[in-house]
Amino acid sequence: MSKEITSREQDYSQWYNDLVIKGGLADYSAVRGCMVIKPYGYALWENMQATLDRMFKDTGHQNAYFPLFVPKSLFEAEEKNAEGFAKECAVVTHYRLKADPANKGKLIVDPEARLEEELVVRPTSEAIIWNTYKGWIQSYRDLPILVNQWANVVRWEMRTRLFLRTAEFLWQEGHTAHATKDEAVAEAEQMLHVYADFAENWMAVPVIKGVKSPNERFAGAEDTYCIEALMQDGKALQAGTSHFLGQNFAKAFDVKFSDKQNKLDYVWATSWGVSTRLIGALVMAHSDDDGLILPPKIAPVQVVIVPIYKGEDQKAKIDVKVKDIVQALKASGVSVKYDDSDNQRPGWKFAQYEMQGVPVRIAIGARDLENNVAEVARRDTKLKESYSLDGLADKVKLLLEDIQQNIYNKALQYRDSHITTADTWDEFVKLLDEKGGFISAHWDGTAETEDKIKELTKATIRCIPLNNAAEEGKCILTGNASTQRVLFARAY
Amino acid sequence: MSKEITSREQDYSQWYNDLVIKGGLADYSAVRGCMVIKPYGYALWENMQATLDRMFKDTGHQNAYFPLFVPKSLFEAEEKNAEGFAKECAVVTHYRLKADPANKGKLIVDPEARLEEELVVRPTSEAIIWNTYKGWIQSYRDLPILVNQWANVVRWEMRTRLFLRTAEFLWQEGHTAHATKDEAVAEAEQMLHVYADFAENWMAVPVIKGVKSPNERFAGAEDTYCIEALMQDGKALQAGTSHFLGQNFAKAFDVKFSDKQNKLDYVWATSWGVSTRLIGALVMAHSDDDGLILPPKIAPVQVVIVPIYKGEDQKAKIDVKVKDIVQALKASGVSVKYDDSDNQRPGWKFAQYEMQGVPVRIAIGARDLENNVAEVARRDTKLKESYSLDGLADKVKLLLEDIQQNIYNKALQYRDSHITTADTWDEFVKLLDEKGGFISAHWDGTAETEDKIKELTKATIRCIPLNNAAEEGKCILTGNASTQRVLFARAY
Repeated sequence: MSKEITSREQDYSQWYNDLVIKGGLADYSAVRGCMVIKPYGYALWENMQATLDRMFKDTGHQNAYFPLFVPKSLFEAEEKNAEGFAKECAVVTHYRLKADPANKGKLIVDPEARLEEELVVRPTSEAIIWNTYKGWIQSYRDLPILVNQWANVVRWEMRTRLFLRTAEFLWQEGHTAHATKDEAVAEAEQMLHVYADFAENWMAVPVIKGVKSPNERFAGAEDTYCIEALMQDGKALQAGTSHFLGQNFAKAFDVKFSDKQNKLDYVWATSWGVSTRLIGALVMAHSDDDGLILPPKIAPVQVVIVPIYKGEDQKAKIDVKVKDIVQALKASGVSVKYDDSDNQRPGWKFAQYEMQGVPVRIAIGARDLENNVAEVARRDTKLKESYSLDGLADKVKLLLEDIQQNIYNKALQYRDSHITTADTWDEFVKLLDEKGGFISAHWDGTAETEDKIKELTKATIRCIPLNNAAEEGKCILTGNASTQRVLFARAY
Repeated sequence: MSKEITSREQDYSQWYNDLVIKGGLADYSAVRGCMVIKPYGYALWENMQATLDRMFKDTGHQNAYFPLFVPKSLFEAEEKNAEGFAKECAVVTHYRLKADPANKGKLIVDPEARLEEELVVRPTSEAIIWNTYKGWIQSYRDLPILVNQWANVVRWEMRTRLFLRTAEFLWQEGHTAHATKDEAVAEAEQMLHVYADFAENWMAVPVIKGVKSPNERFAGAEDTYCIEALMQDGKALQAGTSHFLGQNFAKAFDVKFSDKQNKLDYVWATSWGVSTRLIGALVMAHSDDDGLILPPKIAPVQVVIVPIYKGEDQKAKIDVKVKDIVQALKASGVSVKYDDSDNQRPGWKFAQYEMQGVPVRIAIGARDLENNVAEVARRDTKLKESYSLDGLADKVKLLLEDIQQNIYNKALQYRDSHITTADTWDEFVKLLDEKGGFISAHWDGTAETEDKIKELTKATIRCIPLNNAAEEGKCILTGNASTQRVLFARAY
C-alpha cells in the first residue's frame, strides 16, 4: 500500500490528497467543490464532535437548529457581513422542476416557480439567527443566550481542497447574546481557550492563540480571536475562530433589551466556529509518507489486532486468546478491532492500518501464544515490542497515552523550531522561502502595509498573539515605527 | 400558563401548535415553511438521535456524509424517483451575489454567476449516493455497504406544519447496497423492526408494521415498509419508512458487481429514514390540554426539583438536602434539574414544567424537610404523593419506568380501540367521520379504487399489515373480490 503514496518531499500537496483518499477519509463527488466524507473520516469527525459538544455543554451552551436558507433581505442586513460573503453565495431561485417538453425523461427548472425573494444557502448563520433572537429577547432576564448549532454551510470557493476548503462543509457555529460588552468579550475568549484545549489535548496539534489584524477579521466582527497551527510544510492553518461581534448584528436586526433599570440597549454578540477543516489540519500535522498518524484520543479505532496463523487449528487457539484481550481492552475504554478476515494477508493488513493511522497494532501468532506474548507496534514511531499477554490491556492503555503525548511533542518541537524572528525585509523573504513557519516581525499596524506584504510574498499576518510583549521596533516593510511584533506566515 | 393552551376539543390543530411553540420545542422562522428548532426541542431530538444511532451501529451500520446538492442530470437519472420529487425541489441556479447598482447597501443575484448545470437541494439522497457507490463497488467483496447519513433535506411543501411537514427537516437516511435480493429485503425488514422498536420502547408510541400499497410507495422503490402510528384525533401518522429499492438505482447509475463466479450483476439496494417529524408524532400521541407529556426515556429533563421556602435560611437548608438528592439521581442515570431561580413563584414553575412535559416534579418545602419527605408529582396522571427522602432516587427511578409504561399503555389502548372493521361503504364513511382511527376493510387491490376512496373520503391505505391474514371478501367501494383487509385512515 505505502508505495502508492506520493512522498512529502516529492509533492506535499499530492501527499495530502493521497492520504485523504487512500486513507479512506473522503472522496471527490459529482458536485463541484463538494466532497463525500467516507465512514472512516466521518467516524473521526464524530469523535471530534462528541468531545467538542461535551466541552460546549460543560460551558453552559445548548444546541439548536436554524434554517439552511437565508432570505436575501435578511442576508444583506448586516452590510459588512453581507459584503464579505456575497461572492461565495449559492442562491436558490426556484422551487420546482418540471418535465422537459423537448427531452423525454429529462427535467428543467420550472420558470413559473420562481421565488419572490431569492434564498441564500447559509455561508454562516448570524443573519438568520439574529433575526430569530429578535423574537426571543426583550429583557435582561432573557440573556445570556448560549446556543450552538451543528450544521452544513456552503461557501462557493473557486479553488477547493478536500477538507481544507470545500464548497460545502460541516461545522459548529456558536451564537451567543449578552447584556454587556465585557460578558461578550469574555465569552469569545472562553471559546478560544476551549478550541485551543481541544486542538492541543485531543488533536495533539499545538496552536498559537491570538487576535486577527483588522484585514483578516470575520466580516461583521469587532475582533476575531483565532488559533493558528503549523503544518509540516511550514504553512500555517487557521484552526478555529471566535468573534466578538459587538452590537453590529443587534443593530442590523434591531435586537434590544431592557436592563434592570428599564433602559433599552442593543444586545452584545459573539460567534465562534470550527469545521471539518480540522481534519485536514490533523492529517497534515502528524502524518508521514506511509500514511495517516492519528492521535489515540480521537482515532476511530485505537487498536487493531491481526492474527498470524496457518490452518484453522492455530486460528481457533488465537481466537480464544484474542477474545479475552478484546474484552479487557474494551473494559478499559479502548476501541479495538479484531481483523481476522481471510481475504488478505497479514502484511497487506499491516500496510493498510499503517495507512489509516491506527495508533497501535497487535499481531499474534501461534509461536507468540506458546510464549504468552504478542507483538505490539506503535504507528507513530513504528517501534515494535514483544508484550506479555498478562496485563496487556493496561500496558496498551499506557502506550496509547504515550503515543498521544509523543505526537503532540513532535508537533510542538517542529512548531517551536519554526517561529523565527526577522528584522529586515531580506531576512523575512529568505525565511519565508527557505524555512517557512511563523515569522515574528514588526509591522507598522496599517492595512496598506499588510496588503503590500501579502502581494509581495503571499504571507499574511496570522495573528497578534494573546499577551503579546510590547516592543519598540521598525516595520519590516516600511521602516515605520512599530510597537510590537506579529506573526506572519504563508497559510492554507 | 396552561390557560394559554387551546384545548384539544376546541381546536386540535391549534392545540398542537400551542404545545410546540409554548412548550419551547420550535418556532416559526423568516423562511417560508422552515422552522427553528429551539434548544428544548433539539435536546429531545438529540436524545432520539443518540438512541437511533446506537441501534444503527449495533446492526452494523456506519455513518458517512454526502453532498447537500445533486446536479440535475444525476437527479433525473432514476426516472420515478425524479418524477416523484421534481415538484418539491429547491434549485440553486447561481453562485454569487453582487452589489445592486440601483440600491446602495442592497444585493442582487449576479446574472454572470449562473451555474452551467442547476443543483437540486437534496430532497433525499439516493441519486448522489448511488452515483458515489458506483466508484466504491466492483466486486462482491465490496458488499454489503451499510451506510447511514444524518442530514438536512428540503422538500418544497405548499402547506407546512411545525415538525409534521416542513420545507427543510432533519433526518437520517440509511442507504445500503447488497449482492442479493434476499439480503436487501432482509435489511429493509430489519430496519423496519428497528424503527418499530424505537417508536414503541423509547417514544412509547405503538405502531403497526406494514407494507404500503403501490400508490403510496416511495418514488423509485419496489416495496415500501412503514410504521403507522395513531394520533389522539384519530388520524394516522406515518412514523418511518424502509424501502426495498430493487436494482432500480443500480441500473440508473450503472452500479454492477462481479460475484464469486465472476458474473456481473446489478447491485440491490435499500433506503430507510425517520425524521424530526417523529417529534410531531410524540407531541400528538401523548400530550394533554395542560401541555406536553414526554416519555421519560427520551425526555431532555426527567426530573425537576422545585424548592418552596420563605427566606434564605429555609432555602439554604433545602439546598443542602437537594444537593444529595441530585447527586443520587445522577448516579442512577437520571437527568435532573434543580430550579431554584428566584424570579418566578413555585406555582408558575409547576405550570411551566407541566407545559414542557417533564415526567416527574419534586417539590420540597421547609415542613417537608422536617418530616424527611418530598412531594413527588408525575406528569402523566398528575398524581401527587409524599415520598420519604430515604431511598428517594431509587423510587423515582422506578416511577420513571412506570410512567414510560403507562404512557405507552394508554396510547396502545387508544390505538387498539380505534382499529375498527367496516364491511359496507356506509359503515366505512360513518366510522371515518364519527370515530376515526384505522378502519380495516376489504379493497380490490387496484390503484383506481384507492384513488377514488381518497377522493371521496380523504382516507388512504395506511398499510397492509405484515403477516396480514388472508380473508375472502368484497371491496368496500366496488364490491369486487378481495383477498385481504387493509388499514385505511385519514392521515397527517
